[in-house]
Amino acid sequence: MSKTIFDISVSLDGYVAGPNQSREEGLGEGGEELHQWAFKTAAFHEMHGRSSGEPNRDSEIVAELESTGAEIMGRGKFGGGSGPWGSDPSFGDDWQGWWGEDPPFHKPVFVLTHHEREPLTLGDTTFTFVTAGIESALEQAREGAGGEDVLIGGGAKAIQQYLGAGLIDEFQVHVAPVMLGDGERLFDNLERLPDLELLRVVESPAVTHLKYRVK
Amino acid sequence: MSKTIFDISVSLDGYVAGPNQSREEGLGEGGEELHQWAFKTAAFHEMHGRSSGEPNRDSEIVAELESTGAEIMGRGKFGGGSGPWGSDPSFGDDWQGWWGEDPPFHKPVFVLTHHEREPLTLGDTTFTFVTAGIESALEQAREGAGGEDVLIGGGAKAIQQYLGAGLIDEFQVHVAPVMLGDGERLFDNLERLPDLELLRVVESPAVTHLKYRVK
Repeated sequence: MSKTIFDISVSLDGYVAGPNQSREEGLGEGGEELHQWAFKTAAFHEMHGRSSGEPNRDSEIVAELESTGAEIMGRGKFGGGSGPWGSDPSFGDDWQGWWGEDPPFHKPVFVLTHHEREPLTLGDTTFTFVTAGIESALEQAREGAGGEDVLIGGGAKAIQQYLGAGLIDEFQVHVAPVMLGDGERLFDNLERLPDLELLRVVESPAVTHLKYRVK
Repeated sequence: MSKTIFDISVSLDGYVAGPNQSREEGLGEGGEELHQWAFKTAAFHEMHGRSSGEPNRDSEIVAELESTGAEIMGRGKFGGGSGPWGSDPSFGDDWQGWWGEDPPFHKPVFVLTHHEREPLTLGDTTFTFVTAGIESALEQAREGAGGEDVLIGGGAKAIQQYLGAGLIDEFQVHVAPVMLGDGERLFDNLERLPDLELLRVVESPAVTHLKYRVK
């Protein structure tokens, strides 16, 4: 059966973004460091249309995510900030996300929001804006995923909602050897604590990949 | 050269103790779960004078700590609570710690406190109470360790003080597949963020051992 998963880089002190997130530093101060391991991989380069990068163990981990058939993301990941698409007035209804004309998703994306908007297609990615809550988004994403897994793509708040509602089957955290000291914590505000089983550990010099099943 | 290290079990959401710590539940609600992996090991049983337990990979990890020559602990680990040895009046100057007549340390222990007290010897463990601050305690512990490593034994506050002061050389966290949701966070209130290098990952079904060097 298709699973609902999330997969996210996190600092050793538990943050997915550093303090003072802004349009210039979408991941906050130091937040980019969490993703250095992934930026270097061949799989990441390929998702962004480039045939470079390192074909290492980390790359295989990134490539596994290609088997997900749909992504759900929070409003913040799509637009950032605190307005409909962020407090910056340039995040209006013409805001097309951070990823340019050919976003790297290559699958249907469902954006959790309270702000109605027509679907937006860029390249082979269609963003559908869901105002009916997380369960509705999951239903739509499952349909859009055509039997493949559904990825809760972040940010932390979206993941916390799904995890706290008992809707996550498996997840992976990539623990970077970095501390941020402040910012957005991944495991916080959970309505219900999951009961976990360790599924897999993969190590590389740059990061530790920990995969868990929610029982 | 002898190193200053710490080594502690932590929940996946970053806590070393659960909420509502009390004399009955010194590690707070759910906190004991973090240590289940260790309680089962042959090395832990041996430290407590028993020849039972499982001689598995986790046990080898526990046994590595036997090579430390002295331990520094916070007042809370020795006595708990908020008075000199805890708010409970029974934690007076006759309080002898949690470990009975033969504590499992088998090495000199230095207790950080603001409350002067004569050294206390139980079995082959001598507790020395240090009121002159963390650097003085480290100096005394180094001397007491006879060239071996010094272990900062916890709790979280003691570890945070040493880590934030740049006095830790290496550390290991044992990440249990458990979430506590609330309690005492390990990596918090750091005066200065360490620059880390991943040294070693050891996995077992019960826990993931992550070892870092502070650069």
